[in-house]
Amino acid sequence: MNPYNQIAGRSVERLAALSDGVFAVAMTLLVLDLHAPAADAIHSEADLGRALLELAPRLLVYLMSFLTLGIFWVGQQAQLNVMARSNRDLSWLHLGFLFAVSLMPFSTALMAQFIAFRLALLLYWANVLLLGALLFATWRYATRAGLLADAGVEMRVAVERRIVVAQALYAAGSALCVFNTYVSLGFIVLVQLNYAIAPRIGVLARI
Amino acid sequence: MNPYNQIAGRSVERLAALSDGVFAVAMTLLVLDLHAPAADAIHSEADLGRALLELAPRLLVYLMSFLTLGIFWVGQQAQLNVMARSNRDLSWLHLGFLFAVSLMPFSTALMAQFIAFRLALLLYWANVLLLGALLFATWRYATRAGLLADAGVEMRVAVERRIVVAQALYAAGSALCVFNTYVSLGFIVLVQLNYAIAPRIGVLARI
Amino acid sequence: MNPYNQIAGRSVERLAALSDGVFAVAMTLLVLDLHAPAADAIHSEADLGRALLELAPRLLVYLMSFLTLGIFWVGQQAQLNVMARSNRDLSWLHLGFLFAVSLMPFSTALMAQFIAFRLALLLYWANVLLLGALLFATWRYATRAGLLADAGVEMRVAVERRIVVAQALYAAGSALCVFNTYVSLGFIVLVQLNYAIAPRIGVLARI
Amino acid sequence: MNPYNQIAGRSVERLAALSDGVFAVAMTLLVLDLHAPAADAIHSEADLGRALLELAPRLLVYLMSFLTLGIFWVGQQAQLNVMARSNRDLSWLHLGFLFAVSLMPFSTALMAQFIAFRLALLLYWANVLLLGALLFATWRYATRAGLLADAGVEMRVAVERRIVVAQALYAAGSALCVFNTYVSLGFIVLVQLNYAIAPRIGVLARI
Repeated sequence: MNPYNQIAGRSVERLAALSDGVFAVAMTLLVLDLHAPAADAIHSEADLGRALLELAPRLLVYLMSFLTLGIFWVGQQAQLNVMARSNRDLSWLHLGFLFAVSLMPFSTALMAQFIAFRLALLLYWANVLLLGALLFATWRYATRAGLLADAGVEMRVAVERRIVVAQALYAAGSALCVFNTYVSLGFIVLVQLNYAIAPRIGVLARI
Repeated sequence: MNPYNQIAGRSVERLAALSDGVFAVAMTLLVLDLHAPAADAIHSEADLGRALLELAPRLLVYLMSFLTLGIFWVGQQAQLNVMARSNRDLSWLHLGFLFAVSLMPFSTALMAQFIAFRLALLLYWANVLLLGALLFATWRYATRAGLLADAGVEMRVAVERRIVVAQALYAAGSALCVFNTYVSLGFIVLVQLNYAIAPRIGVLARI
Repeated sequence: MNPYNQIAGRSVERLAALSDGVFAVAMTLLVLDLHAPAADAIHSEADLGRALLELAPRLLVYLMSFLTLGIFWVGQQAQLNVMARSNRDLSWLHLGFLFAVSLMPFSTALMAQFIAFRLALLLYWANVLLLGALLFATWRYATRAGLLADAGVEMRVAVERRIVVAQALYAAGSALCVFNTYVSLGFIVLVQLNYAIAPRIGVLARI
Repeated sequence: MNPYNQIAGRSVERLAALSDGVFAVAMTLLVLDLHAPAADAIHSEADLGRALLELAPRLLVYLMSFLTLGIFWVGQQAQLNVMARSNRDLSWLHLGFLFAVSLMPFSTALMAQFIAFRLALLLYWANVLLLGALLFATWRYATRAGLLADAGVEMRVAVERRIVVAQALYAAGSALCVFNTYVSLGFIVLVQLNYAIAPRIGVLARI
């Protein structure tokens, strides 16, 4: 083995720390695009109320993106927690995943700005698909390269199945844009809230 | 238990690291909205002095928000320190709390821009209320789910009481806006300084 | 003791993690204010060269601020390293210090924009003074409250002396603005490079 | 030894944490410069498609910079992992390296804005060269000062050789701008992908 590869990308802790940093910045930057209305257009409380109401759909898009990032943060954190060690290839798969994370504030701003445009929704979905594909690839690589500490077959399958089901739901939600982008967004937010709140009622709890 | 839930959201350390990241970015972004005056309007030291004096109320709003974030950082850090472990539900409650943290730069910019508007103050207060409610919910959940390492009944009650008293003071301060938003801001800053400085004189030290 | 205070602000590690986050964001945001020239004013390589040359003084100001933040990061890191534990008061002193850190991108942008104005230099100096005063207060408090792990009298004095000498040099440098702000900046950058490079030649190494 | 130097810059962990923060912020800020098109110029899906296609070259530049930062993150992480301890000089060499990291969003924005200008490419290359030179200096210093935990001669040489080869490739790629900046960018991206993907085919795997 190339001696450099013996020390490159070995530290799961450092990878986790970088991930936490990128997620933290991306999560906080989402809202950075939400600007206070310009002062010179606001002359009364009512003006301000109207201006803020106009921002409401944007806020929903940010909430959706925060949920997305939250879901993927929990997902990658779950993966890194069961890894005994890392290597250079895994680090790069994870860096690719973090690149997709760093694109989320842009995709979100685009979606918030062009909420009724299918193209904005499809690009948003492409970003989520990239996140899912790279998370899946990281897990499969880690499994095959023997980097996991203690994950039985059942858990290996559960993690993969989970990503696939979630991506199928995202794809279905995005496909709903043939009707209307708002229908898509509503569907996606509901699916995400289901993941976040994790209700204990039958069929929903199993996805 | 769903095998995925056995590994999702388990790490208190990762949750703490993400929190520190989100707080660090939010605290630093607060001031990002404080722009240096445009160069072409400034022709003398006196011009610059006047332009900076106009920024002074904004700086006070930022200080208030930094104190708010500091208080909640100390609060969540105190909670996470006594947690023996985490789980997926707790992670999501905490992610909700971090979403409220990520909204603070926006609420702050709005308050700074429209310092005399009651609506801006009430939205700011709603953000603080959301922070408090989610911190309270996290603690109560952790208590009931048996996630705490070593917190006697006295401490459990002390943490809850503390959040409720603080929120009552924030609500009272915000209610003062029926007179004037400046009265509200002054009251809130004084309460926060009391929390930060923690004087040892009787009644103040007990709140 | 109030039961809350038994768990609030106890963790030196969390305080260090928050500090690293705030410093990392502040250090990176410094340069965020350095915008690429607008594309429509640039028609040739020579145009671009001229536009970038105009940015050169700003880059020097950023370098100065990066050095400042680097010096204070090394300083606070040295302090936290020898602390056995923290408490709520220390956390708040340190949060005050981090507030001063979060102001640096603004002070820097102001200085970069108004490089020839004494007022900008004096505000920059006030920011540095605040950093030094709070770092000094943190150390003195930690010493008196018995929070240090293993720092003999010699080290206690060395840390305090170091901060006082550095602040005296910053004050002297800022006072040079009675001649010219450029003289001040040059002096401060030289002093900072001396701290960063830490030459081993006699008198310079002892400051 | 000056007593202050006994505690200043000692912690490899803190240095790693600051680095992860700076890299995380820089990686995420890269994309911050990618703005959604202004809403008033977009009246149809086709308009949006055209506006986004115009952003495509910028996205490639961001990808290139993310790869650059990823490569240097893996590199510095590999170095810090084998360090038994740090000292003040090493901390400052590493802080210099982080300053070069913090410049990357600016260099990237400049390159993205002026993609056909040689000067923008050369400044970008200067930034990469600075990163490489400081990483090399950090390693050589750590080697000579005996700060490494367990790195045999083979590894010491491998790390240095790696940096030199990579810098030679960056320099060669940048020199290609005598033809065209796009040729340079294409060459650099290919080299970086080779580093990231680390194919196992003969000559490529050895660089």
